[in-house]
Amino acid sequence: MKTETLDYRDSEINLRGYLAYDGNIGGQRPGVLVWPQVCGPGVHSRTKAEKLAALGYVAFAGDYYGNGRELDRLDDAIKLAQSLFGDPTALRRRAMAAFARLAELPQVDSSRLASIGFCIGGTFSLELARAGAPLRGVVSFHGGLPTQRPAEKHAVKARILACTGGNDSLVPPEQVNAFQAEMTAAGVDWQMITYGGVKHNFTDPDTARLGNPALEYNQLADERSWNAMAGFFEEIFA
Amino acid sequence: MKTETLDYRDSEINLRGYLAYDGNIGGQRPGVLVWPQVCGPGVHSRTKAEKLAALGYVAFAGDYYGNGRELDRLDDAIKLAQSLFGDPTALRRRAMAAFARLAELPQVDSSRLASIGFCIGGTFSLELARAGAPLRGVVSFHGGLPTQRPAEKHAVKARILACTGGNDSLVPPEQVNAFQAEMTAAGVDWQMITYGGVKHNFTDPDTARLGNPALEYNQLADERSWNAMAGFFEEIFA
Repeated sequence: MKTETLDYRDSEINLRGYLAYDGNIGGQRPGVLVWPQVCGPGVHSRTKAEKLAALGYVAFAGDYYGNGRELDRLDDAIKLAQSLFGDPTALRRRAMAAFARLAELPQVDSSRLASIGFCIGGTFSLELARAGAPLRGVVSFHGGLPTQRPAEKHAVKARILACTGGNDSLVPPEQVNAFQAEMTAAGVDWQMITYGGVKHNFTDPDTARLGNPALEYNQLADERSWNAMAGFFEEIFA
Repeated sequence: MKTETLDYRDSEINLRGYLAYDGNIGGQRPGVLVWPQVCGPGVHSRTKAEKLAALGYVAFAGDYYGNGRELDRLDDAIKLAQSLFGDPTALRRRAMAAFARLAELPQVDSSRLASIGFCIGGTFSLELARAGAPLRGVVSFHGGLPTQRPAEKHAVKARILACTGGNDSLVPPEQVNAFQAEMTAAGVDWQMITYGGVKHNFTDPDTARLGNPALEYNQLADERSWNAMAGFFEEIFA
């Protein structure tokens, strides 16, 4: 497997992504954006990118805050994220910068792209879908579902799979219901998987480091949601 | 593939099931009960049983009303089903009769059993789970989710996957929410997949014959839910 950091730009901000792909595969393959949790790029998003590369995809983990910055403290990360999410135009531009960088790579089939994300990375991926980015699919893992700019009818090109914890206090039923109503009204092909009793951040084995009782790793939900994504990719990239 | 009708009894009532399995596979395999829609056993449940047999399982489509009776008219079927569902003890006994018949077959590994069902067949399968039947798993496809006897804490042995249409007026959000709360309170390992915009009976290609606008086949949701079931079986039968 080949991995490398890959810089790209959003206006004046330098962003540092992490690319992973199988160098033994020839020709162009589907490309998948990977959006980290709120703390920014780290072991979790790199690991997921490498797992995608092992499935045969070109995976590119994006950067939120510039120069690949990762924060140790959840509070600090949330402040930065709030600033980013406060401006939906800037938010979508930040996401599109990574999308464009991935799409131009020579080993990527730019007609077969998807975006996945964890926590606010799910939200980021959904914003790409709402913005009408030419993605085949989007997968959100314990992503926040609200938006300042609800999807417009027939504007979303991506099929959407949202995986959420049934006991995620950060993605409560009202959010789930509003999201489903938004997507249905916009005519989106969407699916949602709810994992009973499961909390926020269920895909990150190192979640305990964040010291927040609303967050908890769940190995079974991590595996199940990953397998659901893999099956979804087989469908959308066929 | 081998298929045969197989009679069994619930007290004085003769029931006629439909068995399907691959005769070229030696040894004992997981067994899967298949519960039809409200109209009773017919092409739909037989086809699903055969698809399960093609996956390597021993599939046994059960009978609700005796002698394999299938009804043409939805109204008539609903009346019969209401009578059956009116007595939860009798209901569970009817389900357990098929369970016992499947479990005793020589080609079945009775430690690896599951039950799936469509429409009231999903409800039937869930009743087996609530009754504490020694199943590895239950899959409900557009099944009704209410019960007269909610699951008791730690009584359910089966893992549960419920696949439901996001636009199923027969399984509305209140039902979904109550079911999720019931299962969580009982400590059940449950997952639910919601398919956006999809109506009741989405797995039956011949749904239009029933002439009810609340019911509609959806090929994509049919395929996706079937694949989800297949992945779930790989997990629970491993």
